Amino acid sequence: MISQKFRHTIKKYGLVKRGERIVVAVSGGPDSVTLLYLLFGLKDELGLHLYVAHLDHMLRPHSARDAEFVKSLAAKLGLPVVVGKAGIKKAAVKGSPEELARNIRLDFLFGVARRLKARKICLGHNLDDQAETVLMRLIRGSGLYGLSAILPKKKMSAFTLIRPLLETRRKEIAAYLNKKKIPFCIDETNKQDIYLRNKLRNRLLPLLEKEYNKNIKEVLSNTALSSGYDYDYLVCAALRVLKGQGRKVKLSGFLKLHPAMQNLAMRISIARLKGDTRRITFQHIEEIRDLAMHRPVGSVVDLPKGVSVLKSKTHLVLRI
Amino acid sequence: MISQKFRHTIKKYGLVKRGERIVVAVSGGPDSVTLLYLLFGLKDELGLHLYVAHLDHMLRPHSARDAEFVKSLAAKLGLPVVVGKAGIKKAAVKGSPEELARNIRLDFLFGVARRLKARKICLGHNLDDQAETVLMRLIRGSGLYGLSAILPKKKMSAFTLIRPLLETRRKEIAAYLNKKKIPFCIDETNKQDIYLRNKLRNRLLPLLEKEYNKNIKEVLSNTALSSGYDYDYLVCAALRVLKGQGRKVKLSGFLKLHPAMQNLAMRISIARLKGDTRRITFQHIEEIRDLAMHRPVGSVVDLPKGVSVLKSKTHLVLRI
Repeated sequence: MISQKFRHTIKKYGLVKRGERIVVAVSGGPDSVTLLYLLFGLKDELGLHLYVAHLDHMLRPHSARDAEFVKSLAAKLGLPVVVGKAGIKKAAVKGSPEELARNIRLDFLFGVARRLKARKICLGHNLDDQAETVLMRLIRGSGLYGLSAILPKKKMSAFTLIRPLLETRRKEIAAYLNKKKIPFCIDETNKQDIYLRNKLRNRLLPLLEKEYNKNIKEVLSNTALSSGYDYDYLVCAALRVLKGQGRKVKLSGFLKLHPAMQNLAMRISIARLKGDTRRITFQHIEEIRDLAMHRPVGSVVDLPKGVSVLKSKTHLVLRI
Repeated sequence: MISQKFRHTIKKYGLVKRGERIVVAVSGGPDSVTLLYLLFGLKDELGLHLYVAHLDHMLRPHSARDAEFVKSLAAKLGLPVVVGKAGIKKAAVKGSPEELARNIRLDFLFGVARRLKARKICLGHNLDDQAETVLMRLIRGSGLYGLSAILPKKKMSAFTLIRPLLETRRKEIAAYLNKKKIPFCIDETNKQDIYLRNKLRNRLLPLLEKEYNKNIKEVLSNTALSSGYDYDYLVCAALRVLKGQGRKVKLSGFLKLHPAMQNLAMRISIARLKGDTRRITFQHIEEIRDLAMHRPVGSVVDLPKGVSVLKSKTHLVLRI
């Protein structure tokens, strides 16, 4: 039963507390419509205050129609709704168009939550999204952080993103909507990494399911969830190790660290400097470790996007 | 250059020390023959004492011929050689036939090393083996431990297994042998998980290389190496947390642990009880966490192979 699984995921990860104010991101697609109905089913029992939020990206022909659909759905359930409109301002944010769209969407949701004094933002990602994401990260190359893929619960600035459908299959969602005769819009929102993701969804994952392991999606989802725990533990340890250090990491301390901590300490420092660790591979980190351990003072390792690491007498110095 | 990469891997992971006694496992196949030649090339420079070890499984038609080949190769290089013969005694060890063969081979190598007072045992696994193993583990379902796949350096009882070809591609090995006109036997030793492994080697990996990422093998190898570091760090932390605890894990302490530590503490305890954690999935561990957190005293979680976990007033009690 989908509603039992939904409750189970919420309980297991402590996603929702009694009496909370929650902004539910509803695109109008099958996932977010199901999400809204299932949360609505817990509303009275848990004394939840639910707010529907919809962002009209104005990029698609049917975007106005989708917004109307979400408004009337919210009205039907008697829930307050906020609809935002967003043009993509290319100049304002860096990153790929997908990241841009994602960041604009998150900014919108954060703004809504701030105004409504809600701390939780609820998103509709499901187990199939998770499996696709893990596989995509694996294929492109990834350590533990990438393998964590989509987290059931994630703090971002003052808010917590929660994903109570993350252990539910796409086909369970479709069956639920079908059985309850609940209408929804055709989902066009999942445009992130659309080319590779579609290839994985339509070709690679079905092949793996058929020829290698019929439970491949559940298996990949478990890998993600378990990696999420492990990564969280390691990051907490690395942050303790780094303390306040940012652009300069003390060499003597760095050399005494476990390689797992050296890796994370460097990644965290790089992220602080340039905002993220995209394109920083395991081999880059191995090179920095080699720099620290074996190369003469004054040596430099160049990283993508103009970042470099200099070995001084006393420190590893990150520059951009 | 293969010999440079070989040196680089040895240096990076600290595989070999000056003047060491090393048992080199040589099946006669391309990997182990290359391994022997490359190590031989470092012999004088590093003052190494190399011993060739070959186990004749007597399962294949050509096994006697392979043994002769290895003997004459060792003679040609002027190295001492030990050839063992092994019938597989099914009753003696548990596990699949592949594990059985692997364990018999390791026992043989440990025995040789013990007699020769060597602490290092050198094996010929290459980057392609690594990529296949990571992918196999991923498909079957795996956390960080499985993703670590093949470690460049691994302590086992009193010995250290080292794999200096682990960052070298199978095609580089073939090119080296071809260029140097070095003879070798057709490798029939890699019979572990032969059906799935062959499918991955001959079908899935070429597909991934062609359609998804031409560097997929390097990428999977990096995931393995980086997971190896991370897993090692986490296990050390979990062993500190567990201290002497074995079959009984204190409930109050367990509940305070980070989920990553709860997972590993349980896995280590289960491994102590039944020898390994095969067939223990992420979902089993999640059930044990649920038992500890939410279920009444006296509840039991059943695990595969007759293992169960009882929640007593004060402890999680593992039984078999």
